[in-house]
Amino acid sequence: MTLVLHELVGKDNRRYSGYCWRGRMGIAHKGLDVTYVGCRHGDVEKLAFSGQAKVPVLVDGKHVICDSWDIACYLDDAYPERPALMDGPHGRALTRLVNIWADTQIDIPIVRSSFLDIFNNLHPNVDAANFRATREKRFGLTLEAMQEGHAANVAELSRNLAPLRALLRKQKWINGAEPAYGDYVVFGSFQFPRCLTGRRFLENNDPIAEWFSRVSRRFGGLANTVPTFGDLP
Amino acid sequence: MTLVLHELVGKDNRRYSGYCWRGRMGIAHKGLDVTYVGCRHGDVEKLAFSGQAKVPVLVDGKHVICDSWDIACYLDDAYPERPALMDGPHGRALTRLVNIWADTQIDIPIVRSSFLDIFNNLHPNVDAANFRATREKRFGLTLEAMQEGHAANVAELSRNLAPLRALLRKQKWINGAEPAYGDYVVFGSFQFPRCLTGRRFLENNDPIAEWFSRVSRRFGGLANTVPTFGDLP
Repeated sequence: MTLVLHELVGKDNRRYSGYCWRGRMGIAHKGLDVTYVGCRHGDVEKLAFSGQAKVPVLVDGKHVICDSWDIACYLDDAYPERPALMDGPHGRALTRLVNIWADTQIDIPIVRSSFLDIFNNLHPNVDAANFRATREKRFGLTLEAMQEGHAANVAELSRNLAPLRALLRKQKWINGAEPAYGDYVVFGSFQFPRCLTGRRFLENNDPIAEWFSRVSRRFGGLANTVPTFGDLP
Repeated sequence: MTLVLHELVGKDNRRYSGYCWRGRMGIAHKGLDVTYVGCRHGDVEKLAFSGQAKVPVLVDGKHVICDSWDIACYLDDAYPERPALMDGPHGRALTRLVNIWADTQIDIPIVRSSFLDIFNNLHPNVDAANFRATREKRFGLTLEAMQEGHAANVAELSRNLAPLRALLRKQKWINGAEPAYGDYVVFGSFQFPRCLTGRRFLENNDPIAEWFSRVSRRFGGLANTVPTFGDLP
C-alpha cells in the first residue's frame, strides 16, 4: 500500500519544511512508495483526521503518525526488514540527541533569519496577518527585526556547527559509512532555507556544504525534484 | 591478563582527567580487570614506550593504545563478546559526534574556568612555571583572567547543554535504556571539576546533575573511589 505524507506547501509549490523533509528522506531510505499531499500554513481542517494541526503527518493504511521523530521510529518499527534509519538501541537513542540538537542549535538561528521569508512565501489562501501577529508575539520582535540579525544568526549557527564540521572531516556521513536518519535530520534543517529563498547559511567550501550536496543527490536526487534556489543552503 | 591504564594524577592523588575517566568507565563497562598507573603533567619519559606524551594510554599485553576515543574503539573491537560501548555502526558513528561535541561544547567552558585550579593542584614535581607559561601563551590570557570569567563560562556551558538537558527529560541515559560510552564521555567532562576543586557548573535540580549522580553510582560507585569534592559537578 502507498504511504501518504502530508507536508507543508507555500506559494509556487514551495515545500520547505525541514521536518517534512526528514519524513521524505526517511521514507525514501526505507524504499517505500509514497504520495505527497501539500498542506498550507493554518490549514487545520485538512489535518483534522490526525487530531492535531501540524505537519508532517504520515498515513500508512489505518495508522496515522504525527511528528517527524515519531514517524522515523514508526518506519523502523513497522518495516524492520528494510534498511534501518536508526540501527540498534544506541542508534535510536543517540539519533534522538542529534534530532534535539538540530532542532535547537541549527534550526533556531536559521528560522530567526527566515520568518520574513516564510511570511513572503505563504500560500495566497493563508491568513498572513495572523501568521505575522502570532510569530511577533512569540519572539517579541518584528519579522523584519529578526531578519536584520541575519549576519549574527549566521555567526551563531557557525559556532554551533563546529562539532558537526569536525565530525565530517573524519567520516563521510553523520551515521558513518552510509547515510541514515541522523543525516536526514540535519539535511532537513538546511533544505529548509534552500527551498524557501536561497538565503545562504554555509560557505561553499564548508565540509557541511559538501556533505549537504552528497545527501541531496541520494535517492535519484529526490531533494532536487522540488523548486529550490541554487544547490547549497 | 590485567589491563594497565596510565592516567593523570595531581597532588593528593587527584585523578581529575575527564579523558582518563572515559577510559576508566569504558573498561568497567566491559568488565575487564585493570591496574591504574598515575602519571603527572609533563611526565613525558614515563610514557615514552607509547611514542607520545599524553594520557590516557591503555596497555593490553602487547597492544598500546593512546587517545580516549581509540581506546574505546579498541575495547569494543578486542572484546566483542562483552557489553558494547558503542552498539553497531550507527552507535559508533554517532558516539563520535557526542565525543567531539563534549570536547568542545562542554570541556572548553569548563577548562577555561579551571586552568588556575589545575595549576594549584599540580603534582609537586611538575614544572609549574612552564605549565603556566604554555597555557597563557596558547589562550592569550593569564590563568587568573580565564578563571575570572567563571560566571560567563557557566552561562555559556548551560546554553550549550540545552540539547542534552532536553534529551535527559525524555530518556534515562544518553545511550537509551542502559548507559554506554556516550554517557561515559559526558560523565568524564563533569567528573573533571568534581575531582579537581569542586567548583560548580550545574544546578542541583538540573536533569544533567541527576543523570551524573546515576552514572557515578555505576560499577559499585567507581567514580567515588578517588578523592572528590562533593557529589555533584
